[in-house]
Amino acid sequence: MFSVLRNLLFFLSFCIFSLLSAQKNHPLDSLTQFELIQVQTIVKKSYPSSQHSVSFHYVGLDEPDKSLVLSWQSNRNQHDGNLSRRATIIARIDRKTHEIIIDLSSNSILLDKVYNGHGYPILNFEEQTAASELAIAYAPFVDSIKKRGLKVEEVVCLTFTIGWYGEKRSNRVVRVMCYYLDGTVNLYMRPIEGITVTVDLDQMKIIAYRDRTTVPVPKSEGTEYREAMQKPPLDSKLKGITVSQPDGPSFTIDGHTLRWANWEFHLAFDMRAGLVISLVSIYDPEKDENRRVMYRGFISELFVPYMDLTQEWYYRTFFDAGEYGFGLCAVPLEPLRDCPENAVFMDGYFSGQDGTPGKISNVFCIFERYSGDIMWRHTETGISGKVIREVRPEVNLVVRMVSTVGNYDYIVDWEFKQTGTVKVTVGLTGLLEVRGSVYTHKDQIQEEVYGTILAENTIGVHHDHFFASKRKSYWTVISETAKTESDARIQLGSGAAELLVMNPNKKTKLGNCVGYRLIPQSEARSLLMDDAYEQIRGAFTEYNVWITPYNKSEKWAGGLYTDQSRGDDTLATWSLRNREIENRDIVLWYTLGFHHVPYQEDFPIMPTVSSGFELRPSNFFEHNPTLKVKPPK
Amino acid sequence: MFSVLRNLLFFLSFCIFSLLSAQKNHPLDSLTQFELIQVQTIVKKSYPSSQHSVSFHYVGLDEPDKSLVLSWQSNRNQHDGNLSRRATIIARIDRKTHEIIIDLSSNSILLDKVYNGHGYPILNFEEQTAASELAIAYAPFVDSIKKRGLKVEEVVCLTFTIGWYGEKRSNRVVRVMCYYLDGTVNLYMRPIEGITVTVDLDQMKIIAYRDRTTVPVPKSEGTEYREAMQKPPLDSKLKGITVSQPDGPSFTIDGHTLRWANWEFHLAFDMRAGLVISLVSIYDPEKDENRRVMYRGFISELFVPYMDLTQEWYYRTFFDAGEYGFGLCAVPLEPLRDCPENAVFMDGYFSGQDGTPGKISNVFCIFERYSGDIMWRHTETGISGKVIREVRPEVNLVVRMVSTVGNYDYIVDWEFKQTGTVKVTVGLTGLLEVRGSVYTHKDQIQEEVYGTILAENTIGVHHDHFFASKRKSYWTVISETAKTESDARIQLGSGAAELLVMNPNKKTKLGNCVGYRLIPQSEARSLLMDDAYEQIRGAFTEYNVWITPYNKSEKWAGGLYTDQSRGDDTLATWSLRNREIENRDIVLWYTLGFHHVPYQEDFPIMPTVSSGFELRPSNFFEHNPTLKVKPPK
Repeated sequence: MFSVLRNLLFFLSFCIFSLLSAQKNHPLDSLTQFELIQVQTIVKKSYPSSQHSVSFHYVGLDEPDKSLVLSWQSNRNQHDGNLSRRATIIARIDRKTHEIIIDLSSNSILLDKVYNGHGYPILNFEEQTAASELAIAYAPFVDSIKKRGLKVEEVVCLTFTIGWYGEKRSNRVVRVMCYYLDGTVNLYMRPIEGITVTVDLDQMKIIAYRDRTTVPVPKSEGTEYREAMQKPPLDSKLKGITVSQPDGPSFTIDGHTLRWANWEFHLAFDMRAGLVISLVSIYDPEKDENRRVMYRGFISELFVPYMDLTQEWYYRTFFDAGEYGFGLCAVPLEPLRDCPENAVFMDGYFSGQDGTPGKISNVFCIFERYSGDIMWRHTETGISGKVIREVRPEVNLVVRMVSTVGNYDYIVDWEFKQTGTVKVTVGLTGLLEVRGSVYTHKDQIQEEVYGTILAENTIGVHHDHFFASKRKSYWTVISETAKTESDARIQLGSGAAELLVMNPNKKTKLGNCVGYRLIPQSEARSLLMDDAYEQIRGAFTEYNVWITPYNKSEKWAGGLYTDQSRGDDTLATWSLRNREIENRDIVLWYTLGFHHVPYQEDFPIMPTVSSGFELRPSNFFEHNPTLKVKPPK
Repeated sequence: MFSVLRNLLFFLSFCIFSLLSAQKNHPLDSLTQFELIQVQTIVKKSYPSSQHSVSFHYVGLDEPDKSLVLSWQSNRNQHDGNLSRRATIIARIDRKTHEIIIDLSSNSILLDKVYNGHGYPILNFEEQTAASELAIAYAPFVDSIKKRGLKVEEVVCLTFTIGWYGEKRSNRVVRVMCYYLDGTVNLYMRPIEGITVTVDLDQMKIIAYRDRTTVPVPKSEGTEYREAMQKPPLDSKLKGITVSQPDGPSFTIDGHTLRWANWEFHLAFDMRAGLVISLVSIYDPEKDENRRVMYRGFISELFVPYMDLTQEWYYRTFFDAGEYGFGLCAVPLEPLRDCPENAVFMDGYFSGQDGTPGKISNVFCIFERYSGDIMWRHTETGISGKVIREVRPEVNLVVRMVSTVGNYDYIVDWEFKQTGTVKVTVGLTGLLEVRGSVYTHKDQIQEEVYGTILAENTIGVHHDHFFASKRKSYWTVISETAKTESDARIQLGSGAAELLVMNPNKKTKLGNCVGYRLIPQSEARSLLMDDAYEQIRGAFTEYNVWITPYNKSEKWAGGLYTDQSRGDDTLATWSLRNREIENRDIVLWYTLGFHHVPYQEDFPIMPTVSSGFELRPSNFFEHNPTLKVKPPK
């Protein structure tokens, strides 16, 4: 779900690119503002606006081959040159989807190919705004609004992707769904139900309109979440609390490479994936070297199927990354509230519809977290006459991004621990997407309503959130059972014990294979039937864990063209080949789910719920790598 | 597992009791030092030392009936009197187990009954010390030590409970297991294997001795975890980080009642359970009243079965609460390391073998946790011309205790969130209990070794940790399925969706039944066979969730007399009656487990691993209860 007017916010600050482009390049750095403009210029030169309709949907780094990046990394001190920079573009040109690759050093187009398969690229902001404006200006819609006794100027519309339900042919269409403000900014709590507006994005016109039924718009009372709108007295029971680092942070940022404690990694922004963590390595004091832990990790897809079969709702099975752009929907983080006082911020850049770069200020924050937890401790009272107590508090490094895909705010934290553990947490907050209802009390409800009554005339619809997080490991895998892809598809909670990724070619001094293990936190899987259309498209949610051999092109668990996809290019279809994974360079996919049954406490704004997983070193080090960490003063 | 000399540490500070005894009493307050002395005096008067051997094993509050406590609470402002105070004592008197109840107001014994069933009470420190000293002075043992080329003065012994393996008759015996220091304080890494010393505690004499085999004692190198013993350079990459509350903490402590944000609860120390949280209530701004959430919550039992079938190891299936006293083994928390700068500390008191009170300073710490997390947020870009961003950082209240049962340090956190959630986390750190081994490299191993080679001659033995946390709810339960105890036994991961405790007699304005739901984090269950002796004793680990009707006497999931228990008084046997739980006052038991496969990173000291669960309000409030919480300045 996505808000149509988001571009107003983001485009305020585009085109301030000159200063940063001089910095030392890393081959995995995101495209700079300068490079985004270069892309725009080159594409527009090939397809002049006077003769072609060109609309950008994705512009990002065309990632160099893994072997080149690794060898660049090993020799980076000797090198003075950079790896050549390439951009990959997905654009709609004259109503066709083009895949374009540009060499930025030579200003040349290396590839320009029309994609004729199923599915469409990420929606851009501008076309969503245009579609919504169409609806608001559409005479039958205005009549429908008036018929309901509502004021047109208080109506706000959003565009919804439509999924795929077996249609043979499909155009690039969206549904426009409208909400009512009139006394609140919490539009999601005030849906105007019963109206279906269908817009063809390529023609940019309304191709179907239906006003099926009238349902009362839920009241605005109680929906406000802004401080200024709360009835006094406010709750100010808590006194101030803050984190303080008198000597400053303990991390350094060199370009987009972060170094903190024993960790080093690269950070990039992608308009589809959002936060991308690469080349993660950790210092091994025993070997006196940095050892690689993970090549690249990011959120590959988010699948949010709602569980309401009414006509205006059944199709709502959103892929928040592939349809709306998880990076595109990232929001500026607010200092002191989204991130603590000791946080450092970074900006991100994306391409607008016409290729002009937009900036998201403070898209990432980086901070050291001291929660009062204990990294390790022991009190020894077994030795006569000695009192021994050694305690090391836990201090971790957190990299955070928040993506607000319409009503929902997803908080993504990558957390690095000195013990070698990487912890990924996804928090879910923001506003429920509710359905208007005739009911004002639970006792009135006799039929299946697919949700919980949250406020008068307001039903919170049951739905799931699934995240596929892709982590490309540099290890080769071995285990007693997982030799091929089908061996490594795991539904958690079905008795599996330890999920270990090991390298059989590399052993500790004591002879154990070096490895990392996956510690899952959530075991939710999709409850949809395997042959349901939405489940075919979101089939990656069938298992919690998948392992595939590394393949640079297999990045998006729900397929590259997710909007109206038909499930022919997903993690589930790739892995049907049942390739060998033993002793290969592998990719571990972890699916994290929330089955969200709404409760009244989620109204009018949801307290954060989180889930995640850890990657924990398991015979990777010779011993606890934090033995020599000094306790704080 | 327990260290025999712990008393040296604790008894330094006993008997400083006078000042505190004047404070206002709460009926659930732990026994004061004064009351513990009163108990000692009264028991010794009945059983003079000149004629009887008396040994105290448990002294604690004899909890008043729930109805009395609740009515006291409702009327506490009108009352000037307190509920009468009673103590419950378990003592060995002349080699028999006595259960004694004393009325402290009238200085009289209300009940004194001999227990003739299976199992024995918690071991006290003094008898463990005495048993270990017996071993060290035993000539054949000294010979065994010398035969191994070891120095007797570097040997430290600990006492281990022996479990039960079908024996018809059993005396109160323990095994003494010894370790070698000689250059390290990490005695657990240097077991002296092959020797079995069996001590009868009532006779206090060695009743069996066997030196079966000699295994090399693992090296001391690399086992030290103390800062002072690390080879320089130490790792001081991290600069200082601290929490700061310039206006002081936001909680108040009135006797043992804590008030913070919207929460109120009572805190008590028990020498068996450790931290006991009672009478938890939360302020509901809608109703302008404090609403009860939980009557009483504590860790009921910890079951730690090791998975090694060799002669010296098979019996090691410890119940860390019922055999060693989870509270008795609590350790003083270290300011700035175990708890952050903004923590406040409380002391705890227990009775020693002869009834003299001992003090554990800083046994609890209480602090506000600000981790940089977000309680809720939303950025709204859907409304033309408006930029809306509301973010509330998460600040929680934590109550912490650490119990060091021999080699392991258990960190127990009760965390209260403003959103109404209670989160319980158990962290596990400290030292592995390792087995000495002839092997120095994994490739030498051909047989089943039940563990991981962690260092030369050191095997980390696979084992589990199960915690039964008992929470007595004041709600009555209803759900479509759980009408009786057998309906409510749940193995997680087997498809169960939401675990909700609801009150059918109490509804929100919108007609939803008020409730709280359980959010589990770990789904580990026992992997032992149901008919294994140790599993019969620890049968509560078979399910993650149990619900029983409230019964004041059913407190200890592994039975009241756990040492050498035979499984006839456990949660599993009580619930065989299959009592009704629908519309009753119920108790929810949650079992939390770790299957601990040791890795080299756990050597020589284990990084903390944690697990836990949350209790989250679910249609308990009319809406998000934190709407009016002001963001920090």
